Amino acid sequence: MRNFDEQTITDAVLERVGHAENPRIRQISEAVVRHLHAMVREIRPTQAEWEFAIDFLTRTGKMCDDKRQEFILLSDTLGVSMLVDAINHGSGPGATESTVLGPFYVEGPPELEAGADISPGMEGEPLIVTGTVAAPDGRPLADAIVDVWHSDDDGHYDVQKGGGADAPAMRARFRTDSAGRFHFWTIKPAAYPIPDDGTVGDMLKAQGRHPWRPAHVHFMIEAPGFRKLVTHVFVAGDPYLDSDAVFGVKDSLIREFMPHPAGQAPDGRQVDRGYSHLHYDFGLKPL
Amino acid sequence: MRNFDEQTITDAVLERVGHAENPRIRQISEAVVRHLHAMVREIRPTQAEWEFAIDFLTRTGKMCDDKRQEFILLSDTLGVSMLVDAINHGSGPGATESTVLGPFYVEGPPELEAGADISPGMEGEPLIVTGTVAAPDGRPLADAIVDVWHSDDDGHYDVQKGGGADAPAMRARFRTDSAGRFHFWTIKPAAYPIPDDGTVGDMLKAQGRHPWRPAHVHFMIEAPGFRKLVTHVFVAGDPYLDSDAVFGVKDSLIREFMPHPAGQAPDGRQVDRGYSHLHYDFGLKPL
Repeated sequence: MRNFDEQTITDAVLERVGHAENPRIRQISEAVVRHLHAMVREIRPTQAEWEFAIDFLTRTGKMCDDKRQEFILLSDTLGVSMLVDAINHGSGPGATESTVLGPFYVEGPPELEAGADISPGMEGEPLIVTGTVAAPDGRPLADAIVDVWHSDDDGHYDVQKGGGADAPAMRARFRTDSAGRFHFWTIKPAAYPIPDDGTVGDMLKAQGRHPWRPAHVHFMIEAPGFRKLVTHVFVAGDPYLDSDAVFGVKDSLIREFMPHPAGQAPDGRQVDRGYSHLHYDFGLKPL
Repeated sequence: MRNFDEQTITDAVLERVGHAENPRIRQISEAVVRHLHAMVREIRPTQAEWEFAIDFLTRTGKMCDDKRQEFILLSDTLGVSMLVDAINHGSGPGATESTVLGPFYVEGPPELEAGADISPGMEGEPLIVTGTVAAPDGRPLADAIVDVWHSDDDGHYDVQKGGGADAPAMRARFRTDSAGRFHFWTIKPAAYPIPDDGTVGDMLKAQGRHPWRPAHVHFMIEAPGFRKLVTHVFVAGDPYLDSDAVFGVKDSLIREFMPHPAGQAPDGRQVDRGYSHLHYDFGLKPL
């Protein structure tokens, strides 16, 4: 096979990738080639634009390390992550909706006791988070793993400030009690721009888009026999709820972070200044 | 905008990227989003497959350095480079056909005198390359820049052996004389597998494809008032002419590398062993 033109090159590549033994790899390869070629035929890139694309992807890869995942940001900001989420995680009655994982989850968070403060000594408004984990029929799920992570008062995650795996803050793992409950203390997260000093930031600027995400707390919840839930709870009233840079907001995931004056908190603790309270009841989908 | 599902997410992202001021960036962004989302909707990746794709792209970027360009290899092996070439470089009467640049060109090759040996002391069969550069009407182009580069007898480029910008071999720049002619000595290149120890190699294996390219010499030719020509000349009879891993072969670019016994070569030089002779007459397209 030789002498390909703008039309025949696609069939030639499809013939070639059709040799994949694994049917799923064959299917994915064929779809990638067809859509990629259709995109190129529509865009009709100049040689210089093709070189720009190669360089953009290369720089995106080079920005990635154990604390930064620029390709996830690219997937998020192009709506691909939420599309993959929609394909995989249709919710249902009694099951909490999911949203993007985002680039800031760190494997192996510290497992803490119920009621622990995951942001000790940090500036910001105290926040108590209480919640339950249940099956769709309301049966509480004991010993479920609840991973939480969020940004600080300035909108930064620990990994953006040199912490993370080494010095975790605003991230931890809890387990539900026999009634499916968990709770912990932290500080109230702020809205923040996704990291925009890289290729994704360049793209957003060129597209006339802001990089902001509404304030939220991430949750990843697992229990045997149920699908892992990856989601956030968003702060009601945030100005970016309708223009989240990564398209992750769902109404069912927005909650009031209720302000309370100093005094006795729901867990009995005496708090000497004003604090907020977030409560969310999560439902997991059976496998 | 919130609560996106598998269908509405695409319109939401299109609305967002539609804010691009530059119309070309808007057009490209919209096409990328539409085709990328259509691809994801067809493939319906699991979360694990999405994670694999993110990791694949990340590793592809991390393999790139000043001597290795894995994203160009990916573009080449998916037929994208030849598609972009076909879109941009339709040839015409008297104009040489183009083909992929490939990942092994190095900026700023050493400029040598006509007749120089660009592979002194290297093992392999001596090869004299002679050629002309002309306008489509046959008018010879004097002082055209002719960049050449190729693999050695084992199928490796200098950059794969630690050379390249620092220690160039099998690569140089010549200028045509007043009759549009150039010539140089080197060694006959061999067929070779594209570098297959990275993500592209993994992909080719999974797709049941071999990584081989038929033996060839690269040419990049420039003259004022004409389009830059990027092409190869392939060795006639090579077993991979019909299955080039990057889809780059065109019949008009295949030539006999004619074997000659020891004796006087076309440039008058006395050669003490057998050598080959490649001749090609290039035609440039006016701007």
